[in-house]
Amino acid sequence: MTKSGKSRRSGGRKKALEKSLAPTRKPNYRQLRHPFAPQKIFSEDEINNIHETALKVLEELGIKVLLPEARDIFERAGARVQDEMAFIGRDIVSTSLNNAPNSIKLCAANPQRALTYEDGALIFSPGAGCPNATDRKRGRRPGDLNSYIETLKLHQSFDVIHKLGPSAEPQDVPTYLRHYATMQAQMEFSDKPMFVYARGSKQTEQSFEMIRIALNLSEEDWNKGVWGTTVINSNSPRMLDKPMAQGIIDFARARQMSIITPFCLAGAMAPITVSGALTLQHAEALAGIALAQLVNSGAPVSYGGFASNVDMKSGSPAFGTPEHIKMQIGSGQLARHINLPWRSAAGSASNIADAQGATENISGVWGALMANATLTIHAAGWLEGGLTFGYEKFITDIEALQTVAELCKKTEATDSEIGFDAIKHVDPGGHFFATQHTMERYSTEFYSPIVSDLSNNGSWIKSGSKTATERATGIWESTLQNYVQPTTGHAVPERLANFIEKRTSEGGAPIME
Amino acid sequence: MTKSGKSRRSGGRKKALEKSLAPTRKPNYRQLRHPFAPQKIFSEDEINNIHETALKVLEELGIKVLLPEARDIFERAGARVQDEMAFIGRDIVSTSLNNAPNSIKLCAANPQRALTYEDGALIFSPGAGCPNATDRKRGRRPGDLNSYIETLKLHQSFDVIHKLGPSAEPQDVPTYLRHYATMQAQMEFSDKPMFVYARGSKQTEQSFEMIRIALNLSEEDWNKGVWGTTVINSNSPRMLDKPMAQGIIDFARARQMSIITPFCLAGAMAPITVSGALTLQHAEALAGIALAQLVNSGAPVSYGGFASNVDMKSGSPAFGTPEHIKMQIGSGQLARHINLPWRSAAGSASNIADAQGATENISGVWGALMANATLTIHAAGWLEGGLTFGYEKFITDIEALQTVAELCKKTEATDSEIGFDAIKHVDPGGHFFATQHTMERYSTEFYSPIVSDLSNNGSWIKSGSKTATERATGIWESTLQNYVQPTTGHAVPERLANFIEKRTSEGGAPIME
Repeated sequence: MTKSGKSRRSGGRKKALEKSLAPTRKPNYRQLRHPFAPQKIFSEDEINNIHETALKVLEELGIKVLLPEARDIFERAGARVQDEMAFIGRDIVSTSLNNAPNSIKLCAANPQRALTYEDGALIFSPGAGCPNATDRKRGRRPGDLNSYIETLKLHQSFDVIHKLGPSAEPQDVPTYLRHYATMQAQMEFSDKPMFVYARGSKQTEQSFEMIRIALNLSEEDWNKGVWGTTVINSNSPRMLDKPMAQGIIDFARARQMSIITPFCLAGAMAPITVSGALTLQHAEALAGIALAQLVNSGAPVSYGGFASNVDMKSGSPAFGTPEHIKMQIGSGQLARHINLPWRSAAGSASNIADAQGATENISGVWGALMANATLTIHAAGWLEGGLTFGYEKFITDIEALQTVAELCKKTEATDSEIGFDAIKHVDPGGHFFATQHTMERYSTEFYSPIVSDLSNNGSWIKSGSKTATERATGIWESTLQNYVQPTTGHAVPERLANFIEKRTSEGGAPIME
Repeated sequence: MTKSGKSRRSGGRKKALEKSLAPTRKPNYRQLRHPFAPQKIFSEDEINNIHETALKVLEELGIKVLLPEARDIFERAGARVQDEMAFIGRDIVSTSLNNAPNSIKLCAANPQRALTYEDGALIFSPGAGCPNATDRKRGRRPGDLNSYIETLKLHQSFDVIHKLGPSAEPQDVPTYLRHYATMQAQMEFSDKPMFVYARGSKQTEQSFEMIRIALNLSEEDWNKGVWGTTVINSNSPRMLDKPMAQGIIDFARARQMSIITPFCLAGAMAPITVSGALTLQHAEALAGIALAQLVNSGAPVSYGGFASNVDMKSGSPAFGTPEHIKMQIGSGQLARHINLPWRSAAGSASNIADAQGATENISGVWGALMANATLTIHAAGWLEGGLTFGYEKFITDIEALQTVAELCKKTEATDSEIGFDAIKHVDPGGHFFATQHTMERYSTEFYSPIVSDLSNNGSWIKSGSKTATERATGIWESTLQNYVQPTTGHAVPERLANFIEKRTSEGGAPIME
């Protein structure tokens, strides 16, 4: 309710502000901690019930493990193995959970971008795994190396993106050579913690070797923590395919991090209820975590939850729905129940960066906040349920992430912050524009939006009546123009040249099917 | 991360679903309770400091009270009054806070829509106070009685809108007659708790009388609770103008509810810091609450917080910003500190229902959730910081509100909900479409979106590549077409005809300047 729309657009302010030379605002969006207490949708008894039922699923129903080596590992640990099914006892799970670390160091080329992956940390990574890319200038097209590199530059340019993800899949590079291109690009164009696809042992090993070469890491450096993180999706329901099982094994052996993430779509590949889908998710995640710990006790693993529901009209996965949020909060409860850090996901099923896309993604981001997710993947740029990475969507989502990041900073209420004297010196009905209290702070006090346009209707029409999405085009363009390569990236191509040339001439490394 | 984009869009599901005649989903969005624990940005000490500083502002700096009657009331209670300034001691404030009720019944023509206004309740009301209306069919235009009535029909059609607000100001009705039109329309076209403008004693008294006549209320009915609620904005800083002070007095005498809401824009009419703006807000709100209690001890009042910041580029008020959210959470802490229910506000400064508009409004809605606001005003449809009510914006915002409303329902994790047997009967790699557990629930388990389109890119392009905002046009149109008048509205025009004719012939009632 406002009584005086016009008086609020007062102009006297501007002159007063111009009087002083203002310091620039330099917010710190790195290494965030959750600002809100984790919330609950289930009682402790209910969480126990889900956990116990998941254990029963693993023990009595078992999980299909397509990779013989993985079945052998389970069998040697005492699991009953029959054909391709592994029946995993609760003692195996319980020992594994005891051995899994609950605080993991994610190293980065730039040590100031290193992350501690643990309960309470708030880490965002971009929309990932998209076969397509889209923007308003060039339209929707299959992802290629150019869009892969461009999106890396976008990730690098915003501190609120803490960790890399493969936003646009470089489909113009053959799969047996693709990891050479993606690993080089991550290190050449960014200095943030990296993502490594688990697509077979040879690719994985070579990827790790490229990290050591490109960043010139000693054995000691390499052992300081995790340099490469992967996401392992089980094939819900109750199946672990060959490349995923191999990925868990390879990453555990190398003490790099697997994020064990069943993708449980309630009503499709998982039970239709929130608690049912979470039970299946929990069982599958526990199986993956156990495999990692059996391979290498103490190997860094993350619990993963990416459960949502299908849309009953289209059959498509939905995101940012009430069910998605509930599953996020429930996943957080389950992760804390087993005392492990965990990943969640935001994202959008929208075809375009519109109000739907914003609503869905922000709902998922707030769900992750309520759930105290350690890592929120797909936090910016994910369209069509992951089939397309949107450049404009990335920009409009960044605004929401930065809004959240601002909340992580302690708000002060000291006497000087409150400013009783400022209140005293402004007459009733007056304004605070020119007070000392304002002048000292006006250029640094408020978050400065990147895409939001708060001009009045007349000015907005004069500048072309642009939507946020239309304005976002210019923003990603100028971000790419102003992109600064991190110094750690300069030497990367030269350091990797011999390795890549030799491996390429040997035929690269096939992906595991 | 997804490995199989295509398989997720499986089609086998549809046939299985069509086999059964499904019950319709009937969610209950009325009388919601907050799903999340209230969060904090300040320590108890800091909240004490803000409260104490606000008391000091009232005692030592005073508040300018333009209405002589209001100054007299303060003076008789022991406040020092000098010229137009009232210096209000902490004893007056403290007694008032003891007398103010912390649970208030908001009556409605339909008793099933009555609300209990108290801590823990989650009440949404629409974007309000807008001089203009806009939609994609008719463009942006000054609000008129037609748009006022149309927006009432929209409010009535969605249960997640719990309480009415004057969305579009009927500027085609002269101000001295306007309350006849708005009061009649609210009762003719809706059966929800009503909003009454405080625009002078005569208008207020006549509005209350119209409620008694139109709803055929006995004295006993009228005394059951609050039938009319108003919003009182102080003129920050430290001023209470004549109509607002008169409104507090009139509503308190009639035991109807005033929502005392300073509109504190940090950096403009309030100190630039979150804690400074909240201190000023708190002082002004306490003065208004005290006035109401001095007039009529126990009168229903609500604490109000609508603090945000100005955009440093345009000087316009900003909404859904980090500062707005912080002030919401801080306001919640202050309201609980004085043990009163309170209102917050969402809203958007965007010129159009785009990604910016969605981002801003949802951020404010989630801020209100974090703050456990009793009432969130401007929760749907507010554009341009309140200068325009958007029909499409209302629809896209409703989606976000319904998403939140769904979270209020307890999620179950009983054995039958979890569905161990369903998991048992689906083979690894299979699907749950046809299980009994799914079939029993598929038509009722998930929230059904109103505007979100989850179809794949091909289908979306075939249907015209529409944004959510474009789709929303058809939705508000069909909502108006399918609008059902509440039975309580049928008799209203006839019951009011004589009253309105007589008062109109007497010249109506002027608004107080």
